[in-house]
Amino acid sequence: MALSKKPYRGCRDFFPKDMRVRDFIFGKMKVAAESFAFEPYDGPLLEEVDLYLAKSGEELINDQIYSFTDRGDRKVAIRPEMTPTVARMAAQVHREVAKPIRWYSIPNLLRYEKPQRGRLREHWQFNADVFGAPEHMAEIEILSLVVHLLKSFGANESMFSILLNDRRIVDTVFNDLLKLNQQESYKLYKVIDRAKKVTAEKLDIMVSEIITDADMVTIFKEYLALNTLDSLKAFIEKNNLTENAANFMEFFHKIEKLEVAKYITYDPMIVRGLDYYTGVVFEIFDKHPDNRRAIAGGGAYANLLQIFNEKPLAGIGFGLGDVTLRDFLETHELLPDLTKAKNELFIAYFDEESEETAWNLAHGLRQENLKVELNLGTMKFKKVFTVAQNKGHEFLAMIGSTEREAGEVQIKNLTKKEAKNFKLDDINGIKEFIK
Amino acid sequence: MALSKKPYRGCRDFFPKDMRVRDFIFGKMKVAAESFAFEPYDGPLLEEVDLYLAKSGEELINDQIYSFTDRGDRKVAIRPEMTPTVARMAAQVHREVAKPIRWYSIPNLLRYEKPQRGRLREHWQFNADVFGAPEHMAEIEILSLVVHLLKSFGANESMFSILLNDRRIVDTVFNDLLKLNQQESYKLYKVIDRAKKVTAEKLDIMVSEIITDADMVTIFKEYLALNTLDSLKAFIEKNNLTENAANFMEFFHKIEKLEVAKYITYDPMIVRGLDYYTGVVFEIFDKHPDNRRAIAGGGAYANLLQIFNEKPLAGIGFGLGDVTLRDFLETHELLPDLTKAKNELFIAYFDEESEETAWNLAHGLRQENLKVELNLGTMKFKKVFTVAQNKGHEFLAMIGSTEREAGEVQIKNLTKKEAKNFKLDDINGIKEFIK
Repeated sequence: MALSKKPYRGCRDFFPKDMRVRDFIFGKMKVAAESFAFEPYDGPLLEEVDLYLAKSGEELINDQIYSFTDRGDRKVAIRPEMTPTVARMAAQVHREVAKPIRWYSIPNLLRYEKPQRGRLREHWQFNADVFGAPEHMAEIEILSLVVHLLKSFGANESMFSILLNDRRIVDTVFNDLLKLNQQESYKLYKVIDRAKKVTAEKLDIMVSEIITDADMVTIFKEYLALNTLDSLKAFIEKNNLTENAANFMEFFHKIEKLEVAKYITYDPMIVRGLDYYTGVVFEIFDKHPDNRRAIAGGGAYANLLQIFNEKPLAGIGFGLGDVTLRDFLETHELLPDLTKAKNELFIAYFDEESEETAWNLAHGLRQENLKVELNLGTMKFKKVFTVAQNKGHEFLAMIGSTEREAGEVQIKNLTKKEAKNFKLDDINGIKEFIK
Repeated sequence: MALSKKPYRGCRDFFPKDMRVRDFIFGKMKVAAESFAFEPYDGPLLEEVDLYLAKSGEELINDQIYSFTDRGDRKVAIRPEMTPTVARMAAQVHREVAKPIRWYSIPNLLRYEKPQRGRLREHWQFNADVFGAPEHMAEIEILSLVVHLLKSFGANESMFSILLNDRRIVDTVFNDLLKLNQQESYKLYKVIDRAKKVTAEKLDIMVSEIITDADMVTIFKEYLALNTLDSLKAFIEKNNLTENAANFMEFFHKIEKLEVAKYITYDPMIVRGLDYYTGVVFEIFDKHPDNRRAIAGGGAYANLLQIFNEKPLAGIGFGLGDVTLRDFLETHELLPDLTKAKNELFIAYFDEESEETAWNLAHGLRQENLKVELNLGTMKFKKVFTVAQNKGHEFLAMIGSTEREAGEVQIKNLTKKEAKNFKLDDINGIKEFIK
């Protein structure tokens, strides 16, 4: 029986036209990260399952992770996210290296998802994390980096915003105001995390399963309706939570003075699904009516290094996936046309006797790092121009019997329609004509 | 219990100093591939197991592959090699695209190996393949590319050679000369593939289990002792195999005239372990006494597209792993020193009042794509120089109360020990001083 030519469900084949888009996107990520002096890292594709059991949360473990037992009886998982790996790596070196640690990576990650727009099983995710920086400073650095990256594609504040909250605000509302116990609180977190994806009725039902007191439900709804820093401030003061909210307010006032402020909105529904977040949490949201969704998310995690028996080291990071980013860029028409390859010189020869000459010419020019495509075999003259242009070449080199006998090659500029003959060994002359 | 900080067995954590080496190596691979007008592609991390069952051979399936059943009851595998994927992708598009197809990729691959020098469970592998080219031409193109790549690192013919054979030579020796049936032939392939890794005695025993006739053993040993094209030619003629070997001889004569010839040696023991090869097979061998091993291998496969019910399309490719390549480059001292990051400007400020000024300066310079590290928090003057130099910065920007009051920043060239003051908004002036 014939095998399927299609890729595994929820995964992609990247043909050259797709790969050029991916390389373009990854290139921007690298430039942005390095503009902020972040250093590159990567971890293994497989991690022991325990690493995710510790802090990633039950949805990831129960429904999404690809895990199995290896031939040596170890329980392993294909990495579904990068934060546990970067924390594991930081735990190895944080005592020796200069802090803050600024690291970035673009790993491929796998989750068992039902494939849909913006969500596949395999995706690549730009991750940037800061460890060991003074409070609030790392938050500003991370938010500035994500804005810088999106701006480098040509995006602006009409296209995206940063929806931001703080787990410590949520905690104080849940614990001090709604008087929820730990288990109820955990459940309500999961409800809020899904709040934007369900109807108001469905949300009411989910909330009523956790909060039974009608007054408390009213307070919770008041909280969910907050949509500016001022409304949050009033809510906090009215409910006497000023002291517990002081840290976040201070952060917000600091950031207000900076350029990044114009992208930021307070949003009480942002809590993030992963269990390890402890401070500021945020999502980058696409404002376009056709693509209203989160394209990135992140937050601060204070206690991740303790799972390796290390002393606490404050961390903050974000992940931005290539699938959602590409949707964002396409929706806003921010991708250049990359359908064609960018090559430099196509070499064609017209008789068997010229083959060796053609190989030698290709060899000489490739030594000079020119992008040279040698046609593998003789070809017909009338086909040459179409083939060379379809493959994205700017120049054409032709060797027929006349040129060979004269020890020459004709080079043609396909845009300017200019041609010039060169001696076969005049590699520098040809290079100058082309560059 | 505390979790392990170490990576999963046989996999690597790439800290920034390792990642810079990897990026350096991958960069050379991309430049080499594009000098030959190869286009980038990539496939999914997971493939259905059937894809490897078809043609990859029993060692891979029985001992090396990471396979498991997914939550939807599909038998899947983490890709252990790239050829089946690239064949699957070529099968999708070969009827529409211009041929030959020249594609390259640098995927991460996983095999369940016992970790040792040159062999890990996870590695990255540069793959380049040509589909649909006239016979012999694609072989030359692929061999030229691998030589070009190694030369681009500074390697030369004293450091590596290409050991080359042809499956059709082996087939005619096995079938026409040794009169082996298909099963015996398959077994003897596997014996030859391991021949260089076992003692002469062990080899004798393994051979004797397949070839029982003493005269035949002698002939087989004669074959194994061939080490030049001339000796092969004599052997072929003596045994009346001229017709069956004609294609390979023609290829060898063609290649003799080209620059790539000086790297090539005929080697009867090169057969390659994967079942799909049908023509020329080769390995790149490190000549250094401390690292005598294959660093890359490949070959021609004529029938891989048939498993997808497509008409035959000749393919040839090779894979070069990052682990063996790094060993090669280190053994021959071909790696530059990449222990330090390459940054441009370190910004330090000395009092809280300068924080906002420092953020704004960092923001302005990053817009110009300078690699700017802002120290997150105030720092002591005497520490500034050491920190900036350790992080690989060439320039230092300092803001203290004097500068802030004058609306200025002092920029210092750390190599030339020159300093100059700039107005804070003179981003272009600062950029010119730095670039």
